[in-house]
Amino acid sequence: MSNSCSMLDEHISRFNKHIGEYMPRENPLYNSVIDAMNYSLTAGGKRIRPALVYEFCTACGGNADDASAAACAVEMIHTYSLIHDDLPCMDDDDFRRGRQSCHKAFGEDIALLAGDALQALAFETVAKTPESVDSRRVLKASAFLAKRCGAAGMVGGQIIDLACEGRHAPIDTLTTMYLLKTGALIEAASVMGCIIGGGSKEQIAAASSFANKLGLAFQIQDDVLDVEGDEALLGKPIGSDEASDKSTYVSLIGLSHSKELVKKYTDEAKGALEIFGSRADRLRDLADYLIIRQK
Amino acid sequence: MSNSCSMLDEHISRFNKHIGEYMPRENPLYNSVIDAMNYSLTAGGKRIRPALVYEFCTACGGNADDASAAACAVEMIHTYSLIHDDLPCMDDDDFRRGRQSCHKAFGEDIALLAGDALQALAFETVAKTPESVDSRRVLKASAFLAKRCGAAGMVGGQIIDLACEGRHAPIDTLTTMYLLKTGALIEAASVMGCIIGGGSKEQIAAASSFANKLGLAFQIQDDVLDVEGDEALLGKPIGSDEASDKSTYVSLIGLSHSKELVKKYTDEAKGALEIFGSRADRLRDLADYLIIRQK
Repeated sequence: MSNSCSMLDEHISRFNKHIGEYMPRENPLYNSVIDAMNYSLTAGGKRIRPALVYEFCTACGGNADDASAAACAVEMIHTYSLIHDDLPCMDDDDFRRGRQSCHKAFGEDIALLAGDALQALAFETVAKTPESVDSRRVLKASAFLAKRCGAAGMVGGQIIDLACEGRHAPIDTLTTMYLLKTGALIEAASVMGCIIGGGSKEQIAAASSFANKLGLAFQIQDDVLDVEGDEALLGKPIGSDEASDKSTYVSLIGLSHSKELVKKYTDEAKGALEIFGSRADRLRDLADYLIIRQK
Repeated sequence: MSNSCSMLDEHISRFNKHIGEYMPRENPLYNSVIDAMNYSLTAGGKRIRPALVYEFCTACGGNADDASAAACAVEMIHTYSLIHDDLPCMDDDDFRRGRQSCHKAFGEDIALLAGDALQALAFETVAKTPESVDSRRVLKASAFLAKRCGAAGMVGGQIIDLACEGRHAPIDTLTTMYLLKTGALIEAASVMGCIIGGGSKEQIAAASSFANKLGLAFQIQDDVLDVEGDEALLGKPIGSDEASDKSTYVSLIGLSHSKELVKKYTDEAKGALEIFGSRADRLRDLADYLIIRQK
């Protein structure tokens, strides 16, 4: 497993090296929003989505550097979604990754606009993929990202989440919510990597299948950790889902069956990587790493 | 002037004919957000930005139908910005165009997400430009739109607006705010039309200059109308800027000088159209129409 951690570290370095190139130039008249964007973008996190873009690009035979724009773009989208998620009219969270959430640090108005600007910046950034990559590929990658961010993707997942608050949700609804809320952006990262890397139709379909299974396994693992995780590692009290009367896989089908499903979906995710041969070894490690994680 | 009104009507028909093609497919699990998006998209308005996309596309010798995706995209961006602008943490407006604002009709959470999804949908939509248009052009149009939506564009303008609330702003700051808050999207529309229509570098620069001058004239005219407009036509009380202690061109340089500037910038905007010859006649009419407007 140490491999996959060092792989993530390698991609974090690559991400950190490139992200600054894509940020807007400072201007005293609107630096507050750029500061807020930077504050949230640099708050840390595992940078799983950029890693997926890089890994799928090289698994398809592409050059990792060609994928930097797409990798940074998908993390900008992830960051904007966290900023908007934390707003008072959404989850109303004052903290994120151990420090103040964006609206606590900058005010609600600036946080809202920082999220909006990060979404725009993501699409500006994808278009900065090196010109050596066919612009049809870049446009296709941008369109795929947009679709998975929208009402039939990540935003749709958040809408289902809102609708499920404090009420019993059937497992099909929960599954769709997980696939959209988390899976959609993991899928966007994986598929964009393949598209930029010149992957075939079959490789793109395999990446898509991998991402959906992995996204599901990841979310069900979250439900499991909420019951039997380590509070110190998680950084939040366990049992919070039960306390908030939230439907989870564990509440609907039980702990042991949930753990079986995490294993099943992780295995299926790894199975989908067959088409990439040994070039997907690091992706297999990543899947294992995400599931044995304790937070 | 009747010409330009019928021109806007023509483009409204074209817009209405196409907008449905780009909306996400309904799904009972997240229809609420699609309903909110449709509610605000169909709330009316002059559709000036789509008209600019269509007109600049044809002024460059392009086919208007090729510009429909870009035209609808820019209006999606405009609509998302209005939804987010009306939110309680921003202008806190309960009404927009004579009916409830999006968050009053659907709730703050859904309105926030409807805005987010509309921004994503805009970039998904631009990419649906017919394949007969070179994908390099489409990508360039998408990147231009993204840049003008972001921190150094429309969002930056809103940040300046927030910072100027209740305090005296110098005229340079006010000018930058107008150029970004309103001008940026008018410029995006004009330039995207040229790019899709295959315009030359010089034509793109001319469209950009036209848009910036027109955006400025339009906003200064707003300041003038707030002092001497017709309340019934404006749909809001006149004198509201003075009452809210807001810096405007009129408060900074006086009514008569402001009116001179409206005329000067409108003339300069029309002057920038010379490169397009008679193919820009309807754009000249549109500039006049926007300035003689009473609301």
